[in-house]
Amino acid sequence: MSAPQWVHERLVVDTPGKGFTNITERVAAVVRRSGLRIGQALVFVRHTSASLLIQENADPAVLRDLERWIESLAPEQRAWEHDDEGPDDMPAHARSALTRTSETIPIVDGRLALGTWQGLYLWEHRASRHRRELVVMLSGSA
Amino acid sequence: MSAPQWVHERLVVDTPGKGFTNITERVAAVVRRSGLRIGQALVFVRHTSASLLIQENADPAVLRDLERWIESLAPEQRAWEHDDEGPDDMPAHARSALTRTSETIPIVDGRLALGTWQGLYLWEHRASRHRRELVVMLSGSA
Amino acid sequence: MSAPQWVHERLVVDTPGKGFTNITERVAAVVRRSGLRIGQALVFVRHTSASLLIQENADPAVLRDLERWIESLAPEQRAWEHDDEGPDDMPAHARSALTRTSETIPIVDGRLALGTWQGLYLWEHRASRHRRELVVMLSGSA
Repeated sequence: MSAPQWVHERLVVDTPGKGFTNITERVAAVVRRSGLRIGQALVFVRHTSASLLIQENADPAVLRDLERWIESLAPEQRAWEHDDEGPDDMPAHARSALTRTSETIPIVDGRLALGTWQGLYLWEHRASRHRRELVVMLSGSA
Repeated sequence: MSAPQWVHERLVVDTPGKGFTNITERVAAVVRRSGLRIGQALVFVRHTSASLLIQENADPAVLRDLERWIESLAPEQRAWEHDDEGPDDMPAHARSALTRTSETIPIVDGRLALGTWQGLYLWEHRASRHRRELVVMLSGSA
Repeated sequence: MSAPQWVHERLVVDTPGKGFTNITERVAAVVRRSGLRIGQALVFVRHTSASLLIQENADPAVLRDLERWIESLAPEQRAWEHDDEGPDDMPAHARSALTRTSETIPIVDGRLALGTWQGLYLWEHRASRHRRELVVMLSGSA
């Protein structure tokens, strides 16, 4: 086994407003380029109004349901004190609090060890388009 | 300090339907077998309708309360668009979104550095029995 | 690149009851002392009624809103079965379940790779003062 390594890349993701962007293939490509065979991929989003989620990659209705459902948990209509960045801003922070700022996925046999139906998504919580920055930090052995 | 190492094992957990299965001891056993003294244990569930949670391991009423409470956050009665896999399927995805696909626990002095009252649970969100697959990926030094 | 390293420190945080304590600078100081240039910081809270969250560090109204909002998701008024440790105890477990027991932050160029507006908070969910214990586990290369 060769020396363990740390490899990182910055990902920029342009989002269309509220909803999910599948970033699985972009992270998988970082893993392939690294040559690591065993280890882990840490994916970290550098924002507090967008988050990460591993969810079903088959039926897009699952993602539509999640989007509508989370609106009910963190509604724009609530009397939020922090409202000077628009009615969607504070719900975006709340939605991020409920989901994840980072996800860590094992690397086995040189590949992300995701289940068959799992995809990694950036979940945009603001209403308008945003450019989001992520860090992918791999560690492992070649 | 000897060379850092990566060690992984696949865990299969048979669940009885909705509820918690304590997997702390199974993960602790992987740590003991590895011989690692310092590092971390990443536990990853390869499904989107079951999740992980670190919760109190003392009073089982805590787990019963969590089970009833999360039903109120993601109710079966809601008008979900994705309903062809049964009324419990989409709530299971929502419950997974609220909890965790992976947990990472430090290893100190050769043991999981959990607090006294912490246990690691696989939380099954589907109504029927399922066979769930997890990856335990350890890294650290002996 | 020198040999990868594992470095850990125990943090003790005294909380004033429900609310957020910013621990970013304490974790950043552990990173500086370690001399690691690339890697990751795993922060783990050894309790099930307090949790971690990465959130906005600018407007304190965001944190006040989050505190009021999460009360609505896990209300004390609910008929919880586990109530012998006080009406705030079971909601504290539920709030922990919705947020995070650990956070992992990449280390790039010797610093936590947080976004400009991100801070790491310990979120106390019990009504009274508590002393909370955390493990900071760093791994990486100098």
